[in-house]
Parts: sequence; structure tokens; C-alpha cells
Amino acid sequence: MARIVMKFGGTSVADLDRIHNVARHVKREVDAGHEVAVVVSAMSGKTNELVAWVQGMPKVTGANSPFYDAREYDAIVASGELVTAGLLAIALQSMGIDARSWQGWQIPIKTDNAHGAARILDIEGSEMIRRMGEGQVAVVAGFQGLGPDNRVATLGRGGSDTSAVAIAAAVKADRCDIYTDVDGVYTTDPRIEPKARRLKKIAFEEMLEMASLGAKVLQVRSVELAMVHKVRTFVRSSFEDPDAPGMGDLLNPPGTLICDEEEIVEQEVVTGIAYAKDEAQISLRRVADRPGVSAAIFGPLAESHINVDMIVQNISEDGSKTDMTFTVPSGDMEKALRVLEGAKEQVGFDVIQHETGLVKVSVIGIGMRSHAGVAASAFRALADKGINIKAITTSEIKISILIDGAYAELAVRTLHSVYGLDKK
Amino acid sequence: MARIVMKFGGTSVADLDRIHNVARHVKREVDAGHEVAVVVSAMSGKTNELVAWVQGMPKVTGANSPFYDAREYDAIVASGELVTAGLLAIALQSMGIDARSWQGWQIPIKTDNAHGAARILDIEGSEMIRRMGEGQVAVVAGFQGLGPDNRVATLGRGGSDTSAVAIAAAVKADRCDIYTDVDGVYTTDPRIEPKARRLKKIAFEEMLEMASLGAKVLQVRSVELAMVHKVRTFVRSSFEDPDAPGMGDLLNPPGTLICDEEEIVEQEVVTGIAYAKDEAQISLRRVADRPGVSAAIFGPLAESHINVDMIVQNISEDGSKTDMTFTVPSGDMEKALRVLEGAKEQVGFDVIQHETGLVKVSVIGIGMRSHAGVAASAFRALADKGINIKAITTSEIKISILIDGAYAELAVRTLHSVYGLDKK
Repeated sequence: MARIVMKFGGTSVADLDRIHNVARHVKREVDAGHEVAVVVSAMSGKTNELVAWVQGMPKVTGANSPFYDAREYDAIVASGELVTAGLLAIALQSMGIDARSWQGWQIPIKTDNAHGAARILDIEGSEMIRRMGEGQVAVVAGFQGLGPDNRVATLGRGGSDTSAVAIAAAVKADRCDIYTDVDGVYTTDPRIEPKARRLKKIAFEEMLEMASLGAKVLQVRSVELAMVHKVRTFVRSSFEDPDAPGMGDLLNPPGTLICDEEEIVEQEVVTGIAYAKDEAQISLRRVADRPGVSAAIFGPLAESHINVDMIVQNISEDGSKTDMTFTVPSGDMEKALRVLEGAKEQVGFDVIQHETGLVKVSVIGIGMRSHAGVAASAFRALADKGINIKAITTSEIKISILIDGAYAELAVRTLHSVYGLDKK
Repeated sequence: MARIVMKFGGTSVADLDRIHNVARHVKREVDAGHEVAVVVSAMSGKTNELVAWVQGMPKVTGANSPFYDAREYDAIVASGELVTAGLLAIALQSMGIDARSWQGWQIPIKTDNAHGAARILDIEGSEMIRRMGEGQVAVVAGFQGLGPDNRVATLGRGGSDTSAVAIAAAVKADRCDIYTDVDGVYTTDPRIEPKARRLKKIAFEEMLEMASLGAKVLQVRSVELAMVHKVRTFVRSSFEDPDAPGMGDLLNPPGTLICDEEEIVEQEVVTGIAYAKDEAQISLRRVADRPGVSAAIFGPLAESHINVDMIVQNISEDGSKTDMTFTVPSGDMEKALRVLEGAKEQVGFDVIQHETGLVKVSVIGIGMRSHAGVAASAFRALADKGINIKAITTSEIKISILIDGAYAELAVRTLHSVYGLDKK
């Protein structure tokens, strides 16, 4: 007997047939004698519909904010998950399984007050856990909890992953299964490199880098949470036959296990290649090289909610001036340029240069920590293909390289091959 | 300064433009200095969509019940009102009005445990009332409350009317305005009789009969509640220009006031003509005339959830046998016949006869209590038109007449004219 949390995303519950299929996945685990909690997203498209309605309302005039009341936004967009939770409970009951739906405020899943992007503080799940112990399946509306103001708070887009991991931590689940429309985490995007392999296991830290860098399998926060609470998390497909051989395997179900690195016996040097499109690069030339100049540049950008990524500061030639280069999402570039022009006097630079249509390709692997030469291999391989590198940043387990967008696919395939990821 | 509850139904909040229009109605009352609570339904069509999803799920197998878990049904179908409440709060805020949405469990509106058709037991609205006193508009999701099981309970279709009246009673509102797609209560259905007049006032008891008999302006339970708590209730149109002259009149806004009969100075003898289509008549011939025979007939029908309406028992010729005639909705007739055949031995009748396609036409008016000859006028007028009467039932303020459906419009127009309702 184990305790399992199963999470199903929007495409997995997109219509009544798929909800019924989800119920079959749940039944399999119940029939195997496990205690089960299920977390569901809204039917795919529903949350977008609700968000569009909010955005279709006239803007608040006057006041201090050009934004909507985030508490009302939350009350509106959280409604989609209530529907799927109820429908799945009914589908399970129709199969003779005791089940009930739980809304965030009923459990309650207590969050902070950051409506629209709330963090889970505590899950007071004693009643839910008691019922699970009696064999009742808990079907939980994902993406939401109850704020200190007694109002519904949502966890941000993709928040149902976070709901699932948080519940898994709260009920001390043996496993948290994230069912999605792909069957696991791959060494890179299979649409770019058909030789990409599904990973059997990936360490939390690696998955965190993969998720941050554009592999959209899991919400980044859910991986952070899984890492902190050491929740063994499986990424697996909801579209496989629920009763196919091996689907109910407790230790090795089909999919990718995200786990502590200690659980990964034969650690590869490089685990995967990720990429992020639509990057823009901004360079400030001949910036006065004095204390506080970074704050003068990045403070105003942060205040304007512009997400700055790779930052490269060159050593200045004569010690008085330096060049500062960084990337922002392409969509934010015009805004960033305006902010920087406004701060020109405080910063004291000569020229702004900028370039869009760039892509960031990243090599990720915990094994890098103990292996030299990983970066050098990447640079050599890209050079052999004539790909020019515009910027480089590195961390303990990651090398990120900024290149021209036209070379994105070539770079991904080249790096995927150079580390032998296309081989068994 | 007054305290006003305003309720807007599904067609009034069907899209963003209409929600914005509703906000203008609310702004008018706020600008006049009133304390305002607003109750909203789901966007029209949304509740039907949710119900269709529930009905699209497979039926529960085994167990004692062929029905869905009513608690899950409630959790699902109550979600539509959450959306409109949030959207209207945002629309009001965009006009500079302080507003917040309230979900049933937040107030809370406490109901009994009869999921799907719950009754409101208590509204603990102290926090909501406090905020209204500070000028904040309370936008309440209609149709729902919180059951003793801490789960969402819905009040049955059209339940938002009941929510509005209950809140008006709880906050001791001076007026409860039910905004709908018609501009008031008419002497009869204007689609049948173009000379139908809008009533300025109608007594609670009369409206109760009108509502029960097919005038679908208000949910019957909301009228009962308004009568018990003496809530002055206006039926008025949400589609008129919110800022047209007279719309903000505190004592005499355009529409129909449903009120205590003492408020109606010049009481007409007859107030309106209502009708209900698709009635079926069942007659049991030569029933043994002994104590308990009615229970033997109507007990099994009630257990099968068949709604029996007009019941007529003739005096038997020789004191040993009687004829029993009653009506049911046409859709229930086949089921009723099966139930009665099953109970034949206990009841002891000779023959069942039945007829569908009938219509019940009713003459309603509190003035009847003090005026003789009202029924006689109806019978004579119908006879003059060659309309055969199949059954008659009467109450203190109502005469109901069962006729062939083909004569429905003629009968309504005839009765409307005979009591002078088409004249000023």
C-alpha cells in the first residue's frame, strides 16, 4: 500500500471522454490498494476564456494602479478547476469508487496574500487525509487556495503542478505523478532533435534548470517545492491506455522520475539540452566603472517588471569604462530601451546597442560539477559548425550560450550529439 | 438614504457589454447615496452547459440511487455565478465604485443539506453589512450557499431570485429590485394577448399564484420568502437605459411592485390570467370509495416524484364507487400510468382513462374573496365561445379551469376581456 498524488493538466481533462479516461487511471491505483489524491486543472481553454473576460473589462480609472483587482481575478479564474474536480468525482463514483471533490478553501490550502501568484503556506489536510485513510479518493481543484483575507487566491499559471506537489508533501505521499500530454522529460525537444531520448530519471536541480529554460513540462515553482520536500515526482502521459502493462508499476512506471541526485546511480555528465527563444540582447557601451553602476542599470528595469536574464560585464580596458551586456525577452526590449534612456544620466554610458531574434541554448547536467572540459566541448562543437557565440553564462550545473536565432536548431542538435545524448 | 438589493438574471449578464450596463444601473443607485447589494446569476447558457456536462457523465452503477451525487452537482453548477460576480465587481471598480464579490461560503449564506434544492436557513452577513455601511457595494454570487457539511449547496433553478430576497430580508433592505428581460408583471402573457397591461402593484399572494401557474418572471420560492419577510420586491427591466428619467425613483421606479395587499389601495377583483401548458389528465373509474383510497393512489405517485396538480373527486352514485380525476405534467403521464397499473390491486379501480395536450387557465385576484360571481362569469364566457371545461379547482383567490389545449389562447383572451383587464 502506498499513498499517491496524481495530477492531470488541462489537455488531460479537456472533455468528458478524457475525464472518464483520467478516472480509469485513478481506478487502476485504487484497485492496487493505494490511497489516492487527485489534483486537476481546468478543461484546456477554460482558464484562457476566463482570463479573456477579465481582460475584456474596462480598466480601472484613477487610483494608483492600471491593473485589475487581483482578488476578483482570482475569484473568476479559479472557477474552472471547480468544474473538473466535480466532474471527475462523479466519474469515479460511476465506477463504484468513493470520491469527493475538494475546493481550496474547504481543505483548506492556506496561501499568502499575493493574489494571482500566491504561495502555499500550509495545507490543513487532516480531514482529507482521514478520509483518504478510509479509502475515499480526494479530488482537489488545483491552482488555488485560501488567502489570509478569506478569499480565493490562485498560484499563477501552471499552478496545479504546485498544488499537486504541495499536497504530496502535506500527505507525505510516496509519489507524485504529473500526468501530461507528453510521456516524460526528454534530453531535448523531440520536435527539434528526433533522436532525443526520454530520461528515466533526472535530478531536481537539473529539472529546475530545464524548466526555467523553456522545457515547459512542469511549472518551475513545483520543481522547487519538490526539491525542498524531496517529493519523488513522475512526469508521465495521461494518453496511454490506463490498463496497459506496467502502468501500475509502483517503483518504475513509464515516464521520467524527478528525484534526489543520490537516487541516480549512474549520473551522466550532461543530462539535457534546453533552449529559450525570442531573447533580445542589450549592450551599454563605455559605462562609467564605479560602485553602484549595476544597481543604477538594473534597479529601474526591475521596477518596470522587466525580467533580465544573462548579464555579462567585461573588464574595462583602462579601468575607467566598462561594457555591460544583458538579455531580456524580445517583447520587453522596447520598454527596456526607454527605461535605460531615462536613466542615462545616472548610469553614464555612451551608446546603447541592441539585437533581437536571439536564442539561448543551455547544456545541463549535475555531472558537470566533477567533470572538466564540458564547456570547452560545447564551444568547439559550435565553432566547427560556424555558429558565433554572443554571450556565455555558466553555473555549477549549466552552461548557457546566446546565439543568433537562425542557428537554434543546429546548435541544439550539435550539442545533443556532442555529449552522446542521442545514444543509449 | 436607503438600502437596496438589486438582482440581475442570466440574460442581463450574458456578456461583457451587458455586465457593464448592469454596472451603470448599480452606479445610479450608489450615486443617489444608497447602500447597495447586488445578486447575480450566471451568464445565460452557462448553467445549462454545466448541467449538460454533469448529465453527460456515466450514471452511478450499483448503489441505491440512479442519480448523481448532488453535492458534486452543486459544486459544479454553482461555479457560473462566481464568474459574473467577479466580473461585475471589476466593472464597478472601473467606474470608481468600491465593490467586492462574495461567494456563498464567504458571507456565509447558510443552507440546509438538501443539495440541488437547498433552503436558506440563515445569512451571517455582519461583515458584508458593515462594509455596505462603509459604502462598499456587495456583489453576491446568487443561487448558492454553504451547507452544514461545509460544501456548496445550490437553491435550485432560478434560485438567484431567492438569494436576492433572502439577502434583502437579512440586511433589512428597503427594496429588492429583480431586474429581468421583461419590464414587469403583466395581467397576462402579452405574446397571447397584446392588450395585456403591466401591473403597477400586485399582492404577494397573487404573485405566488401567477408564478406557480406559469408566469415565469420569478421563482416561486422567492415570492414565498418575500411574503413571509414582507420584502417589497420590484420586477423591472435591465435593458432600459440606466439613466433614463425616473429610473432612480426611490418610491415609484418603472416596473411592478410585489407587496403586501394592504399597500394596494384600489384592489381589482381580478388581477391576472395565468396559464400552464402541457397538462395531462388521468381518470380512475369506479374506484372503491373507502378510507385510505386517496393515499393508495397518490402515495405511489409522490414516491415516483410525479407532481400531481388538480385533483377532482366526484361523489359516487351509489356510495360504494367513485371517480378520481387529476392532472400531471404531460411528460410524466406514461410513468404515472405505469405506477397506477402497479398499484391497481391496492387501489381497486376498474378503468384508467387519460388525455394529453390540455391546458390549465387560471383567474387570479385577491378581490375575489369579497366578490361573488367571479367563477360564474368565467364559466359563462367560456361557454359562449364553445370551450368545454374538463375540470375545475378553486381557492380563495384563484379559479383554475382545465380545457383542451387548442383553445388556450382563445380562453386566455376571453377571460382577460371579461374581467376588464384590457382596459385602463
